[in-house]
Amino acid sequence: MPRLAYLGPEGTFTEEALSLLDPTAERLPCASVSAALNAARAGEADGAVVPLENSIEGAITTTLDEFAWGEPLLITAELLLPVRFSLLARPGTEIPHIKRLYTHPAAITQCRGYIARELPDAVVVAAPSTAAAAQEVSLPGSPYDAAIAPRIAGEYYGLTELAGGIGDRSDTVTRFVKVNRPGGPLPEPTGSDRTTLVVFLADDHPGALLEMLTEFSVRGVNLTRIESRPTGDGIGRYFFHFDFEGHIGDARVGEAIAGLHRICGEVRFLGSYPRADGMAPQIKRGTSDAEFGEAGEWLARVRAGQV
Amino acid sequence: MPRLAYLGPEGTFTEEALSLLDPTAERLPCASVSAALNAARAGEADGAVVPLENSIEGAITTTLDEFAWGEPLLITAELLLPVRFSLLARPGTEIPHIKRLYTHPAAITQCRGYIARELPDAVVVAAPSTAAAAQEVSLPGSPYDAAIAPRIAGEYYGLTELAGGIGDRSDTVTRFVKVNRPGGPLPEPTGSDRTTLVVFLADDHPGALLEMLTEFSVRGVNLTRIESRPTGDGIGRYFFHFDFEGHIGDARVGEAIAGLHRICGEVRFLGSYPRADGMAPQIKRGTSDAEFGEAGEWLARVRAGQV
Amino acid sequence: MPRLAYLGPEGTFTEEALSLLDPTAERLPCASVSAALNAARAGEADGAVVPLENSIEGAITTTLDEFAWGEPLLITAELLLPVRFSLLARPGTEIPHIKRLYTHPAAITQCRGYIARELPDAVVVAAPSTAAAAQEVSLPGSPYDAAIAPRIAGEYYGLTELAGGIGDRSDTVTRFVKVNRPGGPLPEPTGSDRTTLVVFLADDHPGALLEMLTEFSVRGVNLTRIESRPTGDGIGRYFFHFDFEGHIGDARVGEAIAGLHRICGEVRFLGSYPRADGMAPQIKRGTSDAEFGEAGEWLARVRAGQV
Amino acid sequence: MPRLAYLGPEGTFTEEALSLLDPTAERLPCASVSAALNAARAGEADGAVVPLENSIEGAITTTLDEFAWGEPLLITAELLLPVRFSLLARPGTEIPHIKRLYTHPAAITQCRGYIARELPDAVVVAAPSTAAAAQEVSLPGSPYDAAIAPRIAGEYYGLTELAGGIGDRSDTVTRFVKVNRPGGPLPEPTGSDRTTLVVFLADDHPGALLEMLTEFSVRGVNLTRIESRPTGDGIGRYFFHFDFEGHIGDARVGEAIAGLHRICGEVRFLGSYPRADGMAPQIKRGTSDAEFGEAGEWLARVRAGQV
Repeated sequence: MPRLAYLGPEGTFTEEALSLLDPTAERLPCASVSAALNAARAGEADGAVVPLENSIEGAITTTLDEFAWGEPLLITAELLLPVRFSLLARPGTEIPHIKRLYTHPAAITQCRGYIARELPDAVVVAAPSTAAAAQEVSLPGSPYDAAIAPRIAGEYYGLTELAGGIGDRSDTVTRFVKVNRPGGPLPEPTGSDRTTLVVFLADDHPGALLEMLTEFSVRGVNLTRIESRPTGDGIGRYFFHFDFEGHIGDARVGEAIAGLHRICGEVRFLGSYPRADGMAPQIKRGTSDAEFGEAGEWLARVRAGQV
Repeated sequence: MPRLAYLGPEGTFTEEALSLLDPTAERLPCASVSAALNAARAGEADGAVVPLENSIEGAITTTLDEFAWGEPLLITAELLLPVRFSLLARPGTEIPHIKRLYTHPAAITQCRGYIARELPDAVVVAAPSTAAAAQEVSLPGSPYDAAIAPRIAGEYYGLTELAGGIGDRSDTVTRFVKVNRPGGPLPEPTGSDRTTLVVFLADDHPGALLEMLTEFSVRGVNLTRIESRPTGDGIGRYFFHFDFEGHIGDARVGEAIAGLHRICGEVRFLGSYPRADGMAPQIKRGTSDAEFGEAGEWLARVRAGQV
Repeated sequence: MPRLAYLGPEGTFTEEALSLLDPTAERLPCASVSAALNAARAGEADGAVVPLENSIEGAITTTLDEFAWGEPLLITAELLLPVRFSLLARPGTEIPHIKRLYTHPAAITQCRGYIARELPDAVVVAAPSTAAAAQEVSLPGSPYDAAIAPRIAGEYYGLTELAGGIGDRSDTVTRFVKVNRPGGPLPEPTGSDRTTLVVFLADDHPGALLEMLTEFSVRGVNLTRIESRPTGDGIGRYFFHFDFEGHIGDARVGEAIAGLHRICGEVRFLGSYPRADGMAPQIKRGTSDAEFGEAGEWLARVRAGQV
Repeated sequence: MPRLAYLGPEGTFTEEALSLLDPTAERLPCASVSAALNAARAGEADGAVVPLENSIEGAITTTLDEFAWGEPLLITAELLLPVRFSLLARPGTEIPHIKRLYTHPAAITQCRGYIARELPDAVVVAAPSTAAAAQEVSLPGSPYDAAIAPRIAGEYYGLTELAGGIGDRSDTVTRFVKVNRPGGPLPEPTGSDRTTLVVFLADDHPGALLEMLTEFSVRGVNLTRIESRPTGDGIGRYFFHFDFEGHIGDARVGEAIAGLHRICGEVRFLGSYPRADGMAPQIKRGTSDAEFGEAGEWLARVRAGQV
């Protein structure tokens, strides 16, 4: 039974993601994304589950920067988890009783409509995480009457769900990834895979990004996400995270990545893993493995003088 | 004397930026980036100063999203402010006395080396902002012995600077921008300008980003920053912030922006303004205003049959 | 009644093309493509009809070079003429009588199958043109028994058509163009137009051709023909003929041509004229005249500060 | 001693090229480019020397089409031969005696200035080749007084050189290539090589040429020549000849060619051979064999999970 570290405390969306990615895993809550990843790096856990991006908030920059700068880890799975906020309170509390509401600022933003409509007079106080808010509310004598948090947090801390699905948008999603220490074989290609890279530029000349995108497009590899992050060396110096369709074992993907490796300063491979949405890639004419294989054999014959 | 809103309270880096961008302006501290921008939108202030990106932390996503989704504002100036952290305490406090240190998590990250070296036994507590930390420490009876904050915060709150420049990197910089309500004339071109845009895709097809970058490169317009942000419509749907060299009044820039406007769903112009670094753009052969003007005249003659 | 010069003598395919392009025109046969074009330039004729390319032989390089280097002329119409070869002889001659066959080398090539099958024992002699061959055969006492030439040549010179359509391929086509002296208005856009340009490079750097093609593609202008021709300044120095969809009056075409004018050494406009095949262009999203117009108005508003 | 076929008769520029490419070879004159190539194909000769392009006249389309459609041959060497025309006559003839001048039309064009200046009253008659003109003039009783032809033709046919270097441009050059039957090893890379290809499109969609050029440019392979030729299937259908820097044994060249092979209908390799001008290629960062090799090893490690 593997042991997986995650962004705790108990009751976070990350724990919910972990439970879906690996229902049987032993769960090790950690105080931060960095702590969870370090637990995996140090062998205290067999892997870790962390959030990568959210459809409202965008990239989780701590995760991006850990993947780029920290000791290497490999993404081996991803999960898209709908973000469903619940209004949680100690048993016996009713909505009209709620004077002080406690939750994370992202939840305040995403539940703004519900709060204005149903709790117009409540004082809303910012908590470090939604799970921490639930934990605090569960304490006898807490100054807070209710928390907004995932339902799983209510189960952990013995709170009652007064209302569920209270986010302004019902389609908010967070993308989580499971990482493992490198060294073993990569996940097998499934036909519906995604690959993630970090690329540092050798020299930050105009047109460098266009050149990188051309390495992908000329081999028919479709990008699904690009994030720029500062290198730390001053405003105007960035490195890039890329997500794209396909598996590094695919010929077109391998050639594109090798091309980036040649023209860029450094390429860090973060993993090839099954897509959570199960979508098959669009394979452009001339870029299938079979076509790469046939072209390679043809080239070998021509180089040997067999035309 | 203009009145400028800013991310308060008194003593923030943003106030320092404001004081450098417009030393004579009246200062209106606001509780958040959104509040400062709303003050400018509503006419409570003549403009606002907000952070846009930091060379360590990256983009200030609240600012990006406000610029993309909120009522339009125009960037009219930018400033690059070195981030210089000071260790501040009530008069009489000495470094060995410090048992509890209070500051914003970003400052904890960026001063990690100093803290480990000089305050290895201090408990470090997260504050909502560095200025708020300084304010709290200044209160008699505060449970905290010292704050890490900008020096200007110490001046406001009557704290002594025990040590200055304690960040791990001496070259950390934050980029601030001044915004105004649109309607008046744009800042004049200076020969060293930057332009900022937000672009929403009409349809998120593979290669859309490459197409956008080609609209820039074919007219010799160099990108200086690209940020992707989620549209809110699910993982995998993004819009883009672009910074690039030149002024919308430049022929090459205007044609590139009009090109984006044609092929994309929506382009929001965020302003053309003097570059803080004073660097002149690289103007590629064939892309100067004079060359655009001459080509336009030639085309008109040819269309009239004068070949 | 206009007077049109053409590549003579009477009975050439060019005359046939002329008669289709302008049935009522007075016809002025000339000894060469250059002579026909010079007649138009000098005002001896109102225009000229010359061949531009053939679906088997390729470009007529004399025509290309005259258009590039000679005094400017404008293409105002094009025609695709099926090449239909006839076996022509003096009345009374029958096929078994033919011992000596006279025709132009291109006709020998294109009728190779027929000659081998039907005239296996004939001596085949090269003539300067197919019409000249017909003229020679028509002379009493000619050493030749038959000519391969267009049927129209037989009519001129009183020859009998012993066989028609004897080319190996029934789909061979020659493209002819009508040219006029510049100065008047261009042909009106019809919605199915073609434009022809000659482009000289400013400096022959690697990637120059890719840059030129990108000026077209970024505005959604589809090339239909590209020919490289030597500049005369040594092997490895070329200039280019381009044919592409659309009319110079179209916004996307005008901007593309102006872009080439900016980045290249010299652009010579050779005309915008109705396509002989009547095909409508593919107009890519964002490149219609309406979209260019709307983008231009939007840009003007934004430049004026109206965002 | 190899036997090389060439475009005869004796005394052509092609024979001069052959004598420079292989001074010791036995020479087999042929009536046409096709005949010379067929002699090589059939084993009657060990190879052939034919002209490929001229700096004034452009491509020799017969050669291009033979290379594209005929039984495959491989280019193994190239030569740039300055075109130097001589005025040749039977011994005893002086320039003022010349009333009838005989030569090939290309020579008439290229010596127009000399003829107008020195032989203003001579009748100029078109010959099938310059060497044939010299041969004809050498016959007693010839109606022609002089020929314009290469000096080597005068030596063959016993003519006197009355004037040399009489072309209007002193820098005219013809490019010749030596071809051999395929099957043996290709010429070794020398560090200054050229490669020639023929490419047929799979489907003639807009942008196909841009895609082909991108296959080259993304691997840093510089084109030196492009020629379009009709496929024979109607106006608007073309295939392409490409010359570019480098040897098919170079990693960047091999990957580019394999890329073309994947996306195009058919690629015919015509040879990699030393450049006549001895110029070294420009090798863009990231495209050397060493960098390709290193990237390939890195990719193999990453695919094996060794990150």
